Amino acid sequence: MKGFKLLPLVCLTLLSFEYASGQNFKYVDPRIGSEGLGNVFIGPSCPYGMIKPGPDNDLHANSGYTADLDEPIYGFSQTHVSGTGGGAKYGNVSVMPFSGEFNSIKQESLRDNEKIAIGYYGARLSKYDIQTEITTSDRAAFYRFKFNSESKNAVKIDLGRYLDESNLPDGRETQQFVGSQVEVVSNTEVRGYTKIRGGWNNGGAYTVYFSAVFDKPFSNFSTWKDSVFYPNEAVQVDEGEKTGAMLFFDDLSGKIVNMKIGISFISSLKAKQNIDKEIPHWDFEKELVETQLKWEDLLSRVEVDSEATTDQKTMLYTGLYHTMLMPVDRTGENPLWENNGPYYDDFYAIWDTYRSSSPLITLLNPSREVDIVNAMLQIYKRDGYLPDARSGNSNGRTQGGSNAEVVIADAFVKGLKGINYKLGLEAMMKDAMYPPGGNEEKEGRGGLVDYNRLGYVSTDYVRSGNRTVEYAYNDYCLAIVAKGIKRKGEYWRFIKQSDNWQNLWRDIEDNGSRGFIMPKNARGKWVDSIQCAATNGKINYVPYTPLAQDWPNCVCWWCGVFYEASSWEYSLSIPHDVAMLIQKSGGNEAFEKRLNTFFREGFYNVANEPSFLTPNLYHWLGRPDLSSDRIHKIIDENYNAGAAGIPGNDDSGAMSSWLAFHMMGLYPNAGQSYYLINTPYFKETIIHQENGKDFIIKAKNLSSKNKYIKSALLNQKPFNTAFIEHEDIINGGVLELIMSDKPSNKWGKTIVPPSKSDY
Amino acid sequence: MKGFKLLPLVCLTLLSFEYASGQNFKYVDPRIGSEGLGNVFIGPSCPYGMIKPGPDNDLHANSGYTADLDEPIYGFSQTHVSGTGGGAKYGNVSVMPFSGEFNSIKQESLRDNEKIAIGYYGARLSKYDIQTEITTSDRAAFYRFKFNSESKNAVKIDLGRYLDESNLPDGRETQQFVGSQVEVVSNTEVRGYTKIRGGWNNGGAYTVYFSAVFDKPFSNFSTWKDSVFYPNEAVQVDEGEKTGAMLFFDDLSGKIVNMKIGISFISSLKAKQNIDKEIPHWDFEKELVETQLKWEDLLSRVEVDSEATTDQKTMLYTGLYHTMLMPVDRTGENPLWENNGPYYDDFYAIWDTYRSSSPLITLLNPSREVDIVNAMLQIYKRDGYLPDARSGNSNGRTQGGSNAEVVIADAFVKGLKGINYKLGLEAMMKDAMYPPGGNEEKEGRGGLVDYNRLGYVSTDYVRSGNRTVEYAYNDYCLAIVAKGIKRKGEYWRFIKQSDNWQNLWRDIEDNGSRGFIMPKNARGKWVDSIQCAATNGKINYVPYTPLAQDWPNCVCWWCGVFYEASSWEYSLSIPHDVAMLIQKSGGNEAFEKRLNTFFREGFYNVANEPSFLTPNLYHWLGRPDLSSDRIHKIIDENYNAGAAGIPGNDDSGAMSSWLAFHMMGLYPNAGQSYYLINTPYFKETIIHQENGKDFIIKAKNLSSKNKYIKSALLNQKPFNTAFIEHEDIINGGVLELIMSDKPSNKWGKTIVPPSKSDY
Repeated sequence: MKGFKLLPLVCLTLLSFEYASGQNFKYVDPRIGSEGLGNVFIGPSCPYGMIKPGPDNDLHANSGYTADLDEPIYGFSQTHVSGTGGGAKYGNVSVMPFSGEFNSIKQESLRDNEKIAIGYYGARLSKYDIQTEITTSDRAAFYRFKFNSESKNAVKIDLGRYLDESNLPDGRETQQFVGSQVEVVSNTEVRGYTKIRGGWNNGGAYTVYFSAVFDKPFSNFSTWKDSVFYPNEAVQVDEGEKTGAMLFFDDLSGKIVNMKIGISFISSLKAKQNIDKEIPHWDFEKELVETQLKWEDLLSRVEVDSEATTDQKTMLYTGLYHTMLMPVDRTGENPLWENNGPYYDDFYAIWDTYRSSSPLITLLNPSREVDIVNAMLQIYKRDGYLPDARSGNSNGRTQGGSNAEVVIADAFVKGLKGINYKLGLEAMMKDAMYPPGGNEEKEGRGGLVDYNRLGYVSTDYVRSGNRTVEYAYNDYCLAIVAKGIKRKGEYWRFIKQSDNWQNLWRDIEDNGSRGFIMPKNARGKWVDSIQCAATNGKINYVPYTPLAQDWPNCVCWWCGVFYEASSWEYSLSIPHDVAMLIQKSGGNEAFEKRLNTFFREGFYNVANEPSFLTPNLYHWLGRPDLSSDRIHKIIDENYNAGAAGIPGNDDSGAMSSWLAFHMMGLYPNAGQSYYLINTPYFKETIIHQENGKDFIIKAKNLSSKNKYIKSALLNQKPFNTAFIEHEDIINGGVLELIMSDKPSNKWGKTIVPPSKSDY
Repeated sequence: MKGFKLLPLVCLTLLSFEYASGQNFKYVDPRIGSEGLGNVFIGPSCPYGMIKPGPDNDLHANSGYTADLDEPIYGFSQTHVSGTGGGAKYGNVSVMPFSGEFNSIKQESLRDNEKIAIGYYGARLSKYDIQTEITTSDRAAFYRFKFNSESKNAVKIDLGRYLDESNLPDGRETQQFVGSQVEVVSNTEVRGYTKIRGGWNNGGAYTVYFSAVFDKPFSNFSTWKDSVFYPNEAVQVDEGEKTGAMLFFDDLSGKIVNMKIGISFISSLKAKQNIDKEIPHWDFEKELVETQLKWEDLLSRVEVDSEATTDQKTMLYTGLYHTMLMPVDRTGENPLWENNGPYYDDFYAIWDTYRSSSPLITLLNPSREVDIVNAMLQIYKRDGYLPDARSGNSNGRTQGGSNAEVVIADAFVKGLKGINYKLGLEAMMKDAMYPPGGNEEKEGRGGLVDYNRLGYVSTDYVRSGNRTVEYAYNDYCLAIVAKGIKRKGEYWRFIKQSDNWQNLWRDIEDNGSRGFIMPKNARGKWVDSIQCAATNGKINYVPYTPLAQDWPNCVCWWCGVFYEASSWEYSLSIPHDVAMLIQKSGGNEAFEKRLNTFFREGFYNVANEPSFLTPNLYHWLGRPDLSSDRIHKIIDENYNAGAAGIPGNDDSGAMSSWLAFHMMGLYPNAGQSYYLINTPYFKETIIHQENGKDFIIKAKNLSSKNKYIKSALLNQKPFNTAFIEHEDIINGGVLELIMSDKPSNKWGKTIVPPSKSDY
């Protein structure tokens, strides 16, 4: 954390505008995760909204924004991602109001009076004394500028600015400029586009078209190309140069200029159509209320009891909010193939989101998840592979497994209708059978030739450790779908392959625990040391232990044995066969000790998705009480309702959805049909499901002391397992947890959650 | 040949317009290859021109055109390819003038008075009595419509029409509609675009933007969307539907309307800019002359003696013309990455063109070839692989080898400057080392895993026979470049691999010759029979002999052991090691007999590129006289100056360049630095080179009787080999061939052209 000047959190209800009717959206604070490592987008957005307008004051911030008040805003761009790490993406079509001299295309200003709320961003640009407010619909944003300066006033639209700019062609994880165009159509409308390539996923060129309309005519204008102004020249054609337009307004002092800006990935006329369809009026407050209502429709699907604290509700609803910012709904906006089905972009990355974000959407908004899965299947069908990460209409950047397969399996086992699972299996088989070719970072399974030949990914390939572990689980998911649609041959092949993690299981001891996923070379020999940097001409080797971390010091960030983690983390990440994992670790007692060591010694990384399930592994020892203890400790120590309340990159809602599930007392094992039951944060949680049936989780006598589940009833019948099937939830009903100050001797003890090797 | 009604060939000099100064372009007849199998584009085009406007009267014709006068024209579209086979591509932005009722978006008319010449197309639409003429610049076309009807007259711009339409998503080799947009900007301008995917190379979506401007205002208009008319509605936004515009003109009878239409792959404003830059006037004849001059600049680089017949000159210059239609120069029009270098599209396919088209461009227009190679290298750098075929900004459809490697090697051995050969080697290594992944038809080397593991492509993969043979030659080309830039490790590896064709050489006899490339399975066993269709429930096997052809009856067109040929053809296609081929075939006598059998028995396919070099193989026996006999017989029997004068698909100029080379008496062995010398068709051929130096080929005493080269002088010194180095040509000079009525006992006898195993 840099020691920068921070804005105090203001109470949201003090904002000058009125809230729409409804309750829950009030508790969303988009600022949670905007400081520290969260990297969330703080501007207004609709659920899964395509346009994400917001301030940019840090070219290298993933969301364009830093809370540091000493960093001047240089513009408000229309496209952002939320919670990501690595290089930035987007930040396109930058709008900036300003006053004073017009002799440069660069303007910037510090801000004050900043207000951030759901569907709203507001700040005063102090240098120019211009109040800027933004609200938004799905594909068009509404800007309200109040100019207070008596000097000349203007609005600039800059098509040459974007995040993480690099002039290096194909600079890794940076964005490169391709072209832009601007056309002043009338004295109230400007159209154009910006075309950029690269970014975090090293994707192909994407084009963001726009149309900006004003409620007051500008008196004159100047376009520019490559930093040269062309006064009153209406068109700058795309010749691979940066272009933009400055629109000059007379006599604005004390007056408001409203601007609506629509975007499109198809054309600037479509961008205009998006404005006309979505915001056919000039009423800022009305638009804000509509956005609030869109969110309320989703957020009201979870209701908690009145004893919940404001902080708890803020954390819960902001968690749901963050989960539903991405992927973005670009249905009808696909420039690559026919727009006759759902299309989503900004899967960023499925490696992060498959564990808890997708399951949360499936639980609260299953019709949306059906659309998302169908969009993924069309991506497979047209682009050749399912995405692992995708942004700007390009697959790119697999991190470990081919985890879209888990998303498909999760939809399948939870009975989502309206998905062609035969096509789903075909897509999964493509991952599992066909190496991704010349770019193993783009899609599919890198190192697959090894994996299918040797049963593990050898150290000839980067990320061999986590790839092997993840592919084994991906194979399990494939097998489950194959079995479900009666494809026995595939089932038997892949259910067997799902044991492949055991091929890298090495019986060594570390910190008192036995057995770890360890690197093995292509000749089948364990690798004991890793070549590291050379010192004074002599190559260094470092011993490879379960706690070793070869990246980024010895090898590149993406080139280690395990991606973003140690063997300690990945060796516990066997979600389909915890029973076998326990057995190979030396049995229940050794495994409990191992888990305790893991958390006590700090081998656990709260911010890392591969460990998302690990605090729950005590369930498989018959000790759900220990899971709950662990989870509550993690949340209480790492999450809060403040701006730095997310302990790592939110990763497109991954961490937020993990939190939201646990606050409700449920946690999914993605790809499998059940939820683990933990001590909730609320005495009562009602899930109003899309099918009209409510599912209610009650925690009777819950208190800080009574934190253990003593027994449970499902629809008033005894319910003795610490996990519950998705089917039981969608059928509606009441899960009553009877809380106590002591761990139960019975509940969750005898029947532990499923493991593959139990079958 | 269908028995359709054909237009008699009219003498070109009878056309109503005047020719520009200069000579050679007069001899170009774009109709050669427009009947029979040639599939050439007959409309006007600049050299490598991006816009190719022309009539469409056959939705499934590769160039949109059939000479059949009974097939009505439905429009004139702006994009075409020339000479291709398989499914069609392009045919975008269809323009149609018409008269009469306006109640349908479909119009069509038979034609008469058709005139086809370089840079010009003209015909009368007999149904409407409208004379339509077209000429063109590089990126904008000029249409002149003379309306004679007294009824209502109109021009239609249809964005929903294109060649080989299919509603089947991803229909193989067909095109699918993605979207379109139209905007009537003023009463003299219409803008918009059409977006299509698929086509022969099964490519991604491409967008053809346009701007059409008229020299007379239309009085009113109607746009349409999805077949519904919207009178006077100026804009139809892209919503995935077919759109278009009809422009109605008052009082046109007897009058001319001129229309200029620019296209762009970037934006419709850029399409307009292309008009403004290239045709800033309304003078049809002036534009026609400019196009003629552009061609003359290239065609005048070859000059032949005055005794050449008109037919000979027509065949020669039309051959050069066809060679320079594609690939198309899209520099500045690349929507995928920065436009700061040359960009070419429509490599269609390099498998066809590497043998003679690229070498011909290198000889006559080396600066252009440098740009083309650099564009290919950028395609490798940005898209990951060199193209084998590419169209609509998408790599796609490898036929056999990764033959872009031959093009790079050809440029290297011929000393083309301004190419980063280090990057070239990197690109070649990518092909040779990294399997192309999930789509083995798209790029790279399909079956590479086998090839690198076994030394041949096994029958586990389609096209295993020709892939093995071609990869071996590709490896040779890679090795030569590696050696040249002092990369010895790569040289030794790949020069060794270039013998891999021998791994499929099977010592069997067929039709009196021994030794053939034959299929082998992955366990190293020869495959004697191929599974074919089942009859009455019983699977048929057909014996696999060197003349067997498994496609398309037993397997799909692309799925046989050899692509588009038999083993007889590919077994003679070892361009880097003819000496070893001769040795393995049983020595000189056996090989001569083999060649004679090949041609006599009709195992030779004149229309197939793998046999392009074969008539020249007698050179390696010290019998260049037999090569010349064979070549002249092939040409005289198969080529002529008529509309059906090309015996197969021209394949983007492949057959035309083969012909043109042979008429000059030279033939390249692409990827190697020399030309084989054959009996020319001309007593004197002067090549005016870009470097300012002339190279003259004289054939002293040439006559139908004196058809053998008795001896030769290079710059007046004895020259006894039947091949000449490229360097000798670019240095300028005179090659004097002394002709005789008997084969020489000396010339070309002792030193035969190089072979790898001679080194």
